[in-house]
Amino acid sequence: MTENQTPLARPLRGIVPPMITPLADHDRLDHSGLERLVAHILVGGVHGLFILGTTGEGPSLSYRLRCELIDRVGELLAGRVPLLVGITDTAFAESVNLAEQAADSGAAAVVLSAPYYFPAGQPELIEYVEHLVRELPLPVFLYNIPSLTKVGFELASLRRLFELPTVLGLKDSSGDMSYVHRVLRLIGDRPDLSLLIGPEALMAESVLMGAHGGVSGGANLAPRLFVELYESAVAGDLAQVRRLQARVMELDATIYSVGRHSSAFLKGVKCALACLGICEDAMAEPFQRFGPGERARVREYLEYLDLGIATHASVG
Amino acid sequence: MTENQTPLARPLRGIVPPMITPLADHDRLDHSGLERLVAHILVGGVHGLFILGTTGEGPSLSYRLRCELIDRVGELLAGRVPLLVGITDTAFAESVNLAEQAADSGAAAVVLSAPYYFPAGQPELIEYVEHLVRELPLPVFLYNIPSLTKVGFELASLRRLFELPTVLGLKDSSGDMSYVHRVLRLIGDRPDLSLLIGPEALMAESVLMGAHGGVSGGANLAPRLFVELYESAVAGDLAQVRRLQARVMELDATIYSVGRHSSAFLKGVKCALACLGICEDAMAEPFQRFGPGERARVREYLEYLDLGIATHASVG
Amino acid sequence: MTENQTPLARPLRGIVPPMITPLADHDRLDHSGLERLVAHILVGGVHGLFILGTTGEGPSLSYRLRCELIDRVGELLAGRVPLLVGITDTAFAESVNLAEQAADSGAAAVVLSAPYYFPAGQPELIEYVEHLVRELPLPVFLYNIPSLTKVGFELASLRRLFELPTVLGLKDSSGDMSYVHRVLRLIGDRPDLSLLIGPEALMAESVLMGAHGGVSGGANLAPRLFVELYESAVAGDLAQVRRLQARVMELDATIYSVGRHSSAFLKGVKCALACLGICEDAMAEPFQRFGPGERARVREYLEYLDLGIATHASVG
Amino acid sequence: MTENQTPLARPLRGIVPPMITPLADHDRLDHSGLERLVAHILVGGVHGLFILGTTGEGPSLSYRLRCELIDRVGELLAGRVPLLVGITDTAFAESVNLAEQAADSGAAAVVLSAPYYFPAGQPELIEYVEHLVRELPLPVFLYNIPSLTKVGFELASLRRLFELPTVLGLKDSSGDMSYVHRVLRLIGDRPDLSLLIGPEALMAESVLMGAHGGVSGGANLAPRLFVELYESAVAGDLAQVRRLQARVMELDATIYSVGRHSSAFLKGVKCALACLGICEDAMAEPFQRFGPGERARVREYLEYLDLGIATHASVG
Repeated sequence: MTENQTPLARPLRGIVPPMITPLADHDRLDHSGLERLVAHILVGGVHGLFILGTTGEGPSLSYRLRCELIDRVGELLAGRVPLLVGITDTAFAESVNLAEQAADSGAAAVVLSAPYYFPAGQPELIEYVEHLVRELPLPVFLYNIPSLTKVGFELASLRRLFELPTVLGLKDSSGDMSYVHRVLRLIGDRPDLSLLIGPEALMAESVLMGAHGGVSGGANLAPRLFVELYESAVAGDLAQVRRLQARVMELDATIYSVGRHSSAFLKGVKCALACLGICEDAMAEPFQRFGPGERARVREYLEYLDLGIATHASVG
Repeated sequence: MTENQTPLARPLRGIVPPMITPLADHDRLDHSGLERLVAHILVGGVHGLFILGTTGEGPSLSYRLRCELIDRVGELLAGRVPLLVGITDTAFAESVNLAEQAADSGAAAVVLSAPYYFPAGQPELIEYVEHLVRELPLPVFLYNIPSLTKVGFELASLRRLFELPTVLGLKDSSGDMSYVHRVLRLIGDRPDLSLLIGPEALMAESVLMGAHGGVSGGANLAPRLFVELYESAVAGDLAQVRRLQARVMELDATIYSVGRHSSAFLKGVKCALACLGICEDAMAEPFQRFGPGERARVREYLEYLDLGIATHASVG
Repeated sequence: MTENQTPLARPLRGIVPPMITPLADHDRLDHSGLERLVAHILVGGVHGLFILGTTGEGPSLSYRLRCELIDRVGELLAGRVPLLVGITDTAFAESVNLAEQAADSGAAAVVLSAPYYFPAGQPELIEYVEHLVRELPLPVFLYNIPSLTKVGFELASLRRLFELPTVLGLKDSSGDMSYVHRVLRLIGDRPDLSLLIGPEALMAESVLMGAHGGVSGGANLAPRLFVELYESAVAGDLAQVRRLQARVMELDATIYSVGRHSSAFLKGVKCALACLGICEDAMAEPFQRFGPGERARVREYLEYLDLGIATHASVG
Repeated sequence: MTENQTPLARPLRGIVPPMITPLADHDRLDHSGLERLVAHILVGGVHGLFILGTTGEGPSLSYRLRCELIDRVGELLAGRVPLLVGITDTAFAESVNLAEQAADSGAAAVVLSAPYYFPAGQPELIEYVEHLVRELPLPVFLYNIPSLTKVGFELASLRRLFELPTVLGLKDSSGDMSYVHRVLRLIGDRPDLSLLIGPEALMAESVLMGAHGGVSGGANLAPRLFVELYESAVAGDLAQVRRLQARVMELDATIYSVGRHSSAFLKGVKCALACLGICEDAMAEPFQRFGPGERARVREYLEYLDLGIATHASVG
């Protein structure tokens, strides 16, 4: 354990935002934006930070840049909240390399989904995870996102993998709440396993039903909103949950709905952060930042939404 | 152009096998197997060689190993047939790196499909290819394989991308022959563009209908069979086409049908090559070679099929 | 309005079980079983009854049998709870016929999903519903079940269709809770529209978040369980919600998991009802009842679950 | 066998157009259009006629209208070519009823795909077909169209079902030529089984590779084109095959590409037939005929294509 590492409470609970990666251009970090973004998110009271996930455009970044980001975020966090690092890759050795970089930078855990080129059968997936976990210097969150990896963790596979002592739990981004309930049943009374929910619209109800928190992309923009929603759900304050959930759905209907493709969420969040002066909105290929028309709409939405975020000088 | 590079005839025609990657273990080349395999394929009379594609488990290999393979195959071919190198990646910069390695090693062209993590919209995909092609030192075959990349090249996108002067044509692995006919119509009378067919069962009919050849995975095992099938189709010898096609479908019903998952083809071909003493059958993660029971079945099928391949001392 | 019709409160709230269709053989009603089943469900305190839906094997039944069922259930209910009748069909005229039969038998509303052979585009779907609704003698619940109809109601289409005065709301069986939250936002403060949830595992959280109830298939077997779960959610009693939800997930992990295909739920529920002596478990083609081995497992699960259902003499 | 029935040669060979259903409005036959259409198709030299398939909008028609159509087409054909009748339905009893009407009207065979609401598992599908075939008064073509029925006939299931003595073969509309080759291998030397190809773009190559003919939708419009393409393929005249295939692909790129949804083919063909004065272009719900703008484009395409069809007074 490095001096900057936060020991990870088990089960991990709370809001662990999947940080977007601030870029100055498609293969270069926006260093000052990164600093402001980390500060902005931490001020919201989040319980951890997850980098190099889907929202972080992890698979689109060069390895050089991924390592630089891990290193820099480790420094910026300085152990204030646990750092989780995405190591999903199609090449086994590259996942190990990323995990080693993560350990060196004080990360508390890594996050691993199915390799996303070849769709493995379930026995192949189990064997893959068992082999990989053995070579990792950090504990692991499994990450279920079949829409992007083509293959998800079936219940019987999870049952097997939850027996591995360094598996911390599951981040589920399937969007399938029936699956979430089955995983909750599987976890049962085990106090060491955590279930975190990916889609931000489903975090509150998941916590109401027993899940441990969320990896909510919108928390890049409005971290306090998601922390409060999580806390309301933990407290069982249904009126407040519904009020805040309505705010979350407003983001969905506005900022996330400007783009036309499945990149709409990512582009919307990055653009909004740029409008607020937090960081630049360059994207990694194959995506490009919004053009002026779309940016104007995001700006209007931000005014309408009144997220209560202190605006920095506009960026980008 | 390096001294080892074969100038690429346009349109590229014939059988360009997607070479499997002989591995000694999951991250180490089987060097002597690689030598034997290249020799075995070239003896079959093929018209080019494609490495680091899907059949080559390209995305599952570490970058170190990919570069080593490019370098070594360039040496082994020594310009006898054109070398095509897969550079598909989720990270733009890594694709450029691989292409530079390919150029240094005497490759004639690179092969590029859609980045396979984020599903790009068609305008995003067009822009991505336009940006990337500009930075590549070699001409490019586009590669359509939506079952693995989630996103294919729509006709209107191809129309745009075929205007780029360094785009050589399309390798289509969609399995959708209606699409193939639409691409043939799009190519029309342009003598510079080539359409190569991925699924080996569809190569012959595609050539009969006007396509230029095939990237037939089974040519790792039986290169002469696919070359003869291609030549029969070019010659319009339908009786011979049907006879040889029946041989191809026997491979499909035997060696490719031993495994249970979508890896069955890959595992079957590698295992058969090992049984024939050509190279080892280690796989890159997330796959593992067949166990003894499956290997025994492959061996029986090989005897039954009598592919007329001189057997080397058994490997692995 | 016939004398047996219950006026439908708007918005419709509560548990409206999608009744299985008790069959003596693949095209004949089990009349006494039907009587017992209706009584069994009503005793559970449900708020309505939905026949000829997916759980009712509606599309698999001959028109003669569908009409007979509508008529008979109308008599059995005698207006005690509102009757909803599925009229989804690939042929427009047959949907109208079924709706007329429903009106004659005292039904309160009909339920309509997209026609399930040809996948209509959204403008086609809107026009279809507008045309059909105009010819129906009863108000309509829209029914979103894209896994079976291939086409769902997109948000923009719902916005249009919710303007039709006889549209009562939506039954959503997409399993997509993000969609559910978007529909809740769309409904907003309109007091006349109802959102009912299909998948039984998602009913409780949907009600916690603002939905109006559930069309829970398991309520054929354990109506009281689902009514209590609904009431706990309405009351905001989270501890009780979680306790009862765990019961629901036990059904999922036991009785619904005996079969191997997507018919597992249907076969499990029918078999369990037969084991309990409530009705026979014949299925409409293309399904067949469980064999003796599967039936023995269902029987064991029933004992283990101890659903507190008074057992009748075993049937079938 | 009725006096109007043509005995069916085995294997059935040639072009068997899937006739569109001429409608005066969404639930009424266009009787004189039907007469002209049948004459138009027969003049083209086709080898059979298939009604109530996908192209015939079979599942969208009321049962009354389906029976009327069967009866009327039986009379119009008067045994000149074999009549095949689609009986696919979600309700077993309705399939039997349609088959009985077909037998009474002199049909030579019926055509049956998987029931299209519930996705049956393969063992369920086998059992369903075995049960149904037993009750049918006519021999049966199986019809594989998984894009619309969700479930296709896997190879192992076909192997079983091809043992039934009244199964005549398979009409495959999967669009998957690898599957076609596997079916050809399965049929092997059995002289009683026929493989007909649905997608018109794939008919020629399928016949070149050993299939028996095609159920080509475009033969409603240009029957002679498809008959000549079939005959060229049988004769092995590759130059002619490619020339005529290019004509087929022109239809695809023009008339079939006017609409925006998956109904584009159907609407285009019906509209073109109306422009040519052959029949009206009313559609069964959920579809509507093209508006004036789209119709003008179809008319222009028809002039450009110069299909050599004698124009009747324009209809509709």
